[in-house]
Amino acid sequence: MEPVMKKTDVVRAILGERFHMTPSHTVGKAFAPTNIALCKYWGKRNQELNLPVTSSLSVSLGDKGATAEIKIHHEPEDMIILNGESVSSNTSFSKKLIAYLNLFRPAGMRFHITLQSNIPIAAGLASSACGFASIICALDKLFDWKLAPQQLSILARLGSGSASRSVWSGFVEWHAGIREDGMDSHGEMIAYSWPDLCVGLLILNQQEKIISSREAMQCTVQTSALYAAWPSTVNRDLQILKEAIQDHDFHRLGCAAESNALAMHATMLSAWPPIQYALPETLLAMQTVWALRQAGVPLYFTQDAGPNLKLLFLKSESDCVRHSFPAIDIVQPFICN
Amino acid sequence: MEPVMKKTDVVRAILGERFHMTPSHTVGKAFAPTNIALCKYWGKRNQELNLPVTSSLSVSLGDKGATAEIKIHHEPEDMIILNGESVSSNTSFSKKLIAYLNLFRPAGMRFHITLQSNIPIAAGLASSACGFASIICALDKLFDWKLAPQQLSILARLGSGSASRSVWSGFVEWHAGIREDGMDSHGEMIAYSWPDLCVGLLILNQQEKIISSREAMQCTVQTSALYAAWPSTVNRDLQILKEAIQDHDFHRLGCAAESNALAMHATMLSAWPPIQYALPETLLAMQTVWALRQAGVPLYFTQDAGPNLKLLFLKSESDCVRHSFPAIDIVQPFICN
Repeated sequence: MEPVMKKTDVVRAILGERFHMTPSHTVGKAFAPTNIALCKYWGKRNQELNLPVTSSLSVSLGDKGATAEIKIHHEPEDMIILNGESVSSNTSFSKKLIAYLNLFRPAGMRFHITLQSNIPIAAGLASSACGFASIICALDKLFDWKLAPQQLSILARLGSGSASRSVWSGFVEWHAGIREDGMDSHGEMIAYSWPDLCVGLLILNQQEKIISSREAMQCTVQTSALYAAWPSTVNRDLQILKEAIQDHDFHRLGCAAESNALAMHATMLSAWPPIQYALPETLLAMQTVWALRQAGVPLYFTQDAGPNLKLLFLKSESDCVRHSFPAIDIVQPFICN
Repeated sequence: MEPVMKKTDVVRAILGERFHMTPSHTVGKAFAPTNIALCKYWGKRNQELNLPVTSSLSVSLGDKGATAEIKIHHEPEDMIILNGESVSSNTSFSKKLIAYLNLFRPAGMRFHITLQSNIPIAAGLASSACGFASIICALDKLFDWKLAPQQLSILARLGSGSASRSVWSGFVEWHAGIREDGMDSHGEMIAYSWPDLCVGLLILNQQEKIISSREAMQCTVQTSALYAAWPSTVNRDLQILKEAIQDHDFHRLGCAAESNALAMHATMLSAWPPIQYALPETLLAMQTVWALRQAGVPLYFTQDAGPNLKLLFLKSESDCVRHSFPAIDIVQPFICN
């Protein structure tokens, strides 16, 4: 068997000599936005390095995201504070975070991490994406590595695939890459702004996920006969989305994003056992979107690995959307509050 | 352009000299069962002749179906009686039926057709399948054509694709065929009986279809990027189903049938505009099936182009199934009542 590339190999390759640097500052602090994929990341070609089968494209949600603050901790164990509360080291959250920090710390060094998130935790809002992105950016400041954004994107990916897109605001394309070591699998900013674009967060159900997106993805790749057509679906949708962003063609953007999300869920439906994240309330909300669209309202949705929807529309439709979905939380990704 | 093969060409080719025969009997009467596809017919390679992209496999529902009785009618217009009521010639039902009869009648001949169905009309129970199959079999008797079942199957297909499977009871495979004229696209009986097999008809909603299966099929073939993987999905599922039928392996049969139905709906979800036949009550029923299965009950479902489900289980589970779905109508396809 060929030697398998490990996460630590990637970290050493990127940090080089910097791996042995001692912190330049007493604290490193960084914010990273959460991101909503308009063309989804669904399926890995490498589980260890979170290398995707296809490229994907997202929009970051402005000031919705996570802020990480990291200091050196002179105690035998890391200290993790999430939204003001200390998290026990036994939780899966802590274990995942500590395993990630282990990739970067010189022997014996412990961290005090404060993570503050302003997005609902259970909402399927890619909290791990902005979490890992904010942590790698905070480490970069603490150690004064001065890494390029694309290097930060690669390192964020080692924590969670979609975190590779949360290193930037605005539209971001995550290139799948073809290299075994994933050095060409990172985000890239798409330098177009769209001030009128709105993303409406629609929390339909707060229950915990029936199955993690990680597991759902793997089950789909392994068992869904329709997954064979997913890469070509993504190629088509990515192309349309990039043109729509350049042209500010909202209709094309919405169609491609909604169709891509439904195609992702379609691959899950044909997995075995079948995976259905939609709940009856999800279906009802979809039907409302379709009815509004039929009535002439340019309104679309996207859905991630959970029952909640994210609506896509332009600012001019805000009142109409709020009328049909009173509980909606509207974000303008390109407007700072 | 090449000359396009018409339905009338197929009829002439099959009937030959018989086309000019006068009726031998005063009445032709035949019953045809409705059928539930375990591997779905989804997509046409020829719209005129109802030639499918893939083969499919069904089980006929015993004595659930339609009985057609046809006589020569000495009046200027056909007379159509459906379930005891005369149907106006303006309805789309009559127009479709008259267009079908036109393929077979010598000039000037009119028919008196009585069609009696014992399945709920709005239930997505392939009423057109048993309707057209019973009519072609009744014509065969009226004229004493003495056609072989495979010829009747081809002629039934001209009325409605799935009618090609309703010429037999039990398990039937409809071979897609490769010929332009469709002479190799007909049903074939699979000669295995399975007395314990049950099909539970679960009417969840009586609303009319949001979109006809004919239109949904065409929209899917034309716009769904995932449809490219449908033929290989069918090949896999057909193979499993045929082995499961031979081995009386209910688990494999159920898995393949449910997965195939979900994959068909998955191709619709990724069509544009998206097609979603499931209603909230459909999702709830699926969740109940999945929960029962998780609890050890060997229970599966299939779903056609509508919101209702057909449950698959063995006789030993009847009480359990009826307990969870009190309104269910249970059919044993291989047991005559």
